[in-house]
Amino acid sequence: MDRLRIELGPRSYPILIGPGLLGQAPLLAEAIAARDVLVVSNTTVAPLYLAKLERGLEGKRVAAAILPDGEQFKTLETLARVFDALVERRMNRDACVVALGGGVVGDMAGFAAACYQRGVDYVQVPTTLLAQVDSSVGGKTGVNHRLGKNLIGAFHQPRAVISDTDTLRTLDPRELRAGLAEVIKYGLIADEPFLAWLEANLDALLALDPSVLAHAIRRSCEVKAEIVAEDEREHGRRALLNLGHTFGHAIETATGYGEWLHGEAVGAGMFMAADLSRRLGWLAAADVERVRTLLARAGLPLEAPRIGAARALELMGMDKKVLAGRIRLVLLRGIGAGVVEGDYPAEALQATLAAHFEARA
Amino acid sequence: MDRLRIELGPRSYPILIGPGLLGQAPLLAEAIAARDVLVVSNTTVAPLYLAKLERGLEGKRVAAAILPDGEQFKTLETLARVFDALVERRMNRDACVVALGGGVVGDMAGFAAACYQRGVDYVQVPTTLLAQVDSSVGGKTGVNHRLGKNLIGAFHQPRAVISDTDTLRTLDPRELRAGLAEVIKYGLIADEPFLAWLEANLDALLALDPSVLAHAIRRSCEVKAEIVAEDEREHGRRALLNLGHTFGHAIETATGYGEWLHGEAVGAGMFMAADLSRRLGWLAAADVERVRTLLARAGLPLEAPRIGAARALELMGMDKKVLAGRIRLVLLRGIGAGVVEGDYPAEALQATLAAHFEARA
Repeated sequence: MDRLRIELGPRSYPILIGPGLLGQAPLLAEAIAARDVLVVSNTTVAPLYLAKLERGLEGKRVAAAILPDGEQFKTLETLARVFDALVERRMNRDACVVALGGGVVGDMAGFAAACYQRGVDYVQVPTTLLAQVDSSVGGKTGVNHRLGKNLIGAFHQPRAVISDTDTLRTLDPRELRAGLAEVIKYGLIADEPFLAWLEANLDALLALDPSVLAHAIRRSCEVKAEIVAEDEREHGRRALLNLGHTFGHAIETATGYGEWLHGEAVGAGMFMAADLSRRLGWLAAADVERVRTLLARAGLPLEAPRIGAARALELMGMDKKVLAGRIRLVLLRGIGAGVVEGDYPAEALQATLAAHFEARA
Repeated sequence: MDRLRIELGPRSYPILIGPGLLGQAPLLAEAIAARDVLVVSNTTVAPLYLAKLERGLEGKRVAAAILPDGEQFKTLETLARVFDALVERRMNRDACVVALGGGVVGDMAGFAAACYQRGVDYVQVPTTLLAQVDSSVGGKTGVNHRLGKNLIGAFHQPRAVISDTDTLRTLDPRELRAGLAEVIKYGLIADEPFLAWLEANLDALLALDPSVLAHAIRRSCEVKAEIVAEDEREHGRRALLNLGHTFGHAIETATGYGEWLHGEAVGAGMFMAADLSRRLGWLAAADVERVRTLLARAGLPLEAPRIGAARALELMGMDKKVLAGRIRLVLLRGIGAGVVEGDYPAEALQATLAAHFEARA
């Protein structure tokens, strides 16, 4: 088992990575110290892993809130069900909320924990690659508004993250590929050698080779943790983690939540960010091709919906990363060298949006 | 104008107290620095003060969310309307939420600000005595659950508090008296000389004498600020501020939100806490009478609803101040000497509950 410690002063916590962790009761009991536990999961994951987790929590008072599965349910209305479960079980401030599922479950469970009695503990048990490499580091929690993603939420760090890589065996291959988009992102923004390692090991990753998987998860968490530790509240460097996200949000919002997976939208968005970086003269055409090839090999869709450049820009304008009306974007000054930039010619952005969002002649 | 600074390190903020502050545009513009402002108010307060506030914010982009008036609307559902207003106006992270109203408006506006985009600024313009002496210090925000008060919320400090004492002239006298309960509370838990001053000046307070009012608000905020500064996240001494609240929550929950005002329930609860303190031998019978007399002179109801001791205990058990199943209460070791205690004979609590909640023969 790999153990990684996220250093955040009094809010530091461990990430445990490896196969078979859900079967290790002592490990679970140590990570989830509370007597009262509410497990938040969804209708897909609960039948697969809830009983196993509950066996590991024997002797505690455990309840479960099983939510409908899907990004379209990441709402205040669904969140209210988690609060109902906490209140109806009379859980107090010493309770612990455990997120068993992917990023949506983690975001909602974490947000519920942040708000219940103004803050109780929570532990993440991510069961998707995306959640294992992304949601488990950074402390972001929240829900969507019908007009925009993640507009309502809180920063709330987990007490521990337990990433059982065996859970990826039941993951929809499409979800696995969406998770790989975020793994590739870490290479693109901060670690060229890791990107080269991914190019060399992509087939093994897709085949769920356990040791290759563990390394990819660990390195992804490390890169994210390094960036988050420098900038916990997202005022500066942390914005690098949003590579592809501003473009991706436009795709997700235009198509409605659920049609594109988040990681898929980010993948297509990273391709656009690379394209714009090339138009600015910051990235060689060969590097854009390198990005495109790796994303395509990972099985990720690169064709954005043809919603028009104007609509895409409008949707990007609602994005959280707007500062005083100006669209700051994460771009690449090279592979492994992400930068946050608001100072670029509007024409270059227009050209990228036209190339990707306009209907072709 | 009085100016009090709440010292909380990087989250320190000023409280401005005095008559006519809402008419002072430069002061408002300084306290509310953001360009984009959402004023959250309710159907009672907005017609009285919204236009005045908006005149003071000329040149900014100002929108308003007007909520229904009453504790029964302090819910996630009402909160969603504030989020809708923020999103529909495309307010970004630099926006400021301004709470114009009483404690309910302040709690919801503050919670919305805490969660919108994971945290934007907010400024309080409290228009009730209760909000001016209580809600404006401490950073507690949140909404009720149908099974308990303030169960969902966040700690989020305002950037500034503007307490215009002229707004108390339009306040329902019953609301004024409810606010006085909290003012009396500060004397009881931490400041006997202040309690004596209140005894001497109660009639002037009830007559809204401006300078007496300003002193009462300022001293209340100071006492609360001293306690909060020591214990921002409510792990120890801050619990003193809950004098009367655990008993009071039982009253409020049993009767449904809205029948008893919060301050009224706290007033009756403080009388019960004094009664229990006497049964424990900590408070003289004459001191209990001193408490009763002052609360009665302030026009506060002291007769709890006759819901029975068992039901009252059950409702107290759901209260947030329960630690691992044990009911910790704020009691008095003397006037001006509040203590937080979980170690007392159950029989004494039972006797107090019987005296106050059981139907009389």
